[in-house]
Amino acid sequence: MAEYIESLERLAEQFARLEGVGKKSAMRMAFSVLELERDDVESFAKALLDAKEKIHLCPICQNLTDREQCFVCEDPQRDRSTICVVSDPKTMLAMEKVREYRGVYHVLHGVISPMNGVTPDKLKIKELLARVGEGNVEEIIVATDPTVEGEATALYLAKLLRPLGVRVTRLAYGVPVGADLEYADEVTLCRALEGRRDV
Amino acid sequence: MAEYIESLERLAEQFARLEGVGKKSAMRMAFSVLELERDDVESFAKALLDAKEKIHLCPICQNLTDREQCFVCEDPQRDRSTICVVSDPKTMLAMEKVREYRGVYHVLHGVISPMNGVTPDKLKIKELLARVGEGNVEEIIVATDPTVEGEATALYLAKLLRPLGVRVTRLAYGVPVGADLEYADEVTLCRALEGRRDV
Repeated sequence: MAEYIESLERLAEQFARLEGVGKKSAMRMAFSVLELERDDVESFAKALLDAKEKIHLCPICQNLTDREQCFVCEDPQRDRSTICVVSDPKTMLAMEKVREYRGVYHVLHGVISPMNGVTPDKLKIKELLARVGEGNVEEIIVATDPTVEGEATALYLAKLLRPLGVRVTRLAYGVPVGADLEYADEVTLCRALEGRRDV
Repeated sequence: MAEYIESLERLAEQFARLEGVGKKSAMRMAFSVLELERDDVESFAKALLDAKEKIHLCPICQNLTDREQCFVCEDPQRDRSTICVVSDPKTMLAMEKVREYRGVYHVLHGVISPMNGVTPDKLKIKELLARVGEGNVEEIIVATDPTVEGEATALYLAKLLRPLGVRVTRLAYGVPVGADLEYADEVTLCRALEGRRDV
C-alpha cells in the first residue's frame, strides 16, 4: 500500500506497533485520523508526547504516575502496613476498582519466567525488600496472576519475605485459575481479597 | 480512571475517538505507547500530524493523496475513458488490489442516504459531472456497495449520466449482496468487474 498514500501508510505502521493492533485495524485507524479536525489531531499528537514524557515510575511502589508519587502512595489515608504486590499497573487499577482495599501496592513489572528470560533480578523485588526493610510492614498480599508463573513468583517472594517477619498472603482462589487478573470482575476480586490465606 | 494517571487517561481518550476503538482497547493502546522508545513516540506524533497536514483530495478524482494528484490520476498509462465510481478511498484501494482494472476512479465520499442526511449535493457528484462534461469519457462503472443506499446511488447517477451519452454500468452481482466492498476478496471483485452490466 506504500506506493499509494505514503503518509497514510506511515501512520498505519505506527498504529500497528501497538499491542493487539493488526494491519487491517491499523489502516482503519489511520483513515479515521483523517476524519478528525486538525486541532484534534494536534491534541492527539500532544497527548502521545505528554504521556511518554510525564509518566514515570513512582519511587515508592513502582507504579506508573505523572506526579511525584502515585495516587495511592500520596494518599495519607492508606494503610502502609499492608502491601499488595501486583505484576503490572493494569492489575493494580483492577484492584483499586474494588474499593475494598485500603493498603498500598508494589508493582513488580512482570512475573518470574525463566523460559522468557525473566529472572527475579529483572523485577522490582529489590525495591520491595527495601520497603519491608524500613519496618512497619505487617503483611504482603501477593496478587500475581493465578498461573504457573504467578504462583512461582508468589512462592519465591514468600521465601524471601517470611524470614523478615512479615505475614505473606495470597489472594483466595476466588479468581478462576488460569485467568488474567486484569479482566476479573469486581465481585470476584472482592471475594478473593476477603478469603486471602497464608502462603 | 482520570484521577489515577491523568496523562495516560487523556491519551486513551484520544485513541477512543477513532472508529471502532472501544474504551478497553484504547486503554490497552495507551499503556502500549509507554512501552515504546521515546524516539518511536516522537515518530508516531509526527506521523499523525504529517498525515493530517499532507493528505488532501486529488483535484481530479477526489481520492485521498499526499501528492499533487493521486497515484492513479498521475499515471499516464491509465485509461481515462473509463471511470470507476466508488463511495470511499478504502473501496478504491480494494479495487486496485485486483490489478485488473486499468481505468481511473472517482470517489463520491459517501452514498445517498436521506435517512442519515446524505443528500446528493453532499457527495462529489458535481465533480464527476464536470469530468464527464469535458468529453472523452465512454463508460462509468458504478462500484458502490450492493446495499439499498449503494443501489439507489447507482440509479441516481445512471439517470444523470445517461443523457450525457456515456455508458453507465454496475459491478456484476459476484459480490455478495449486503456486504461491504472493502472486505470483498480479490477473486470476487475480479469476477464482479468482468461481469459488469448496464444499469
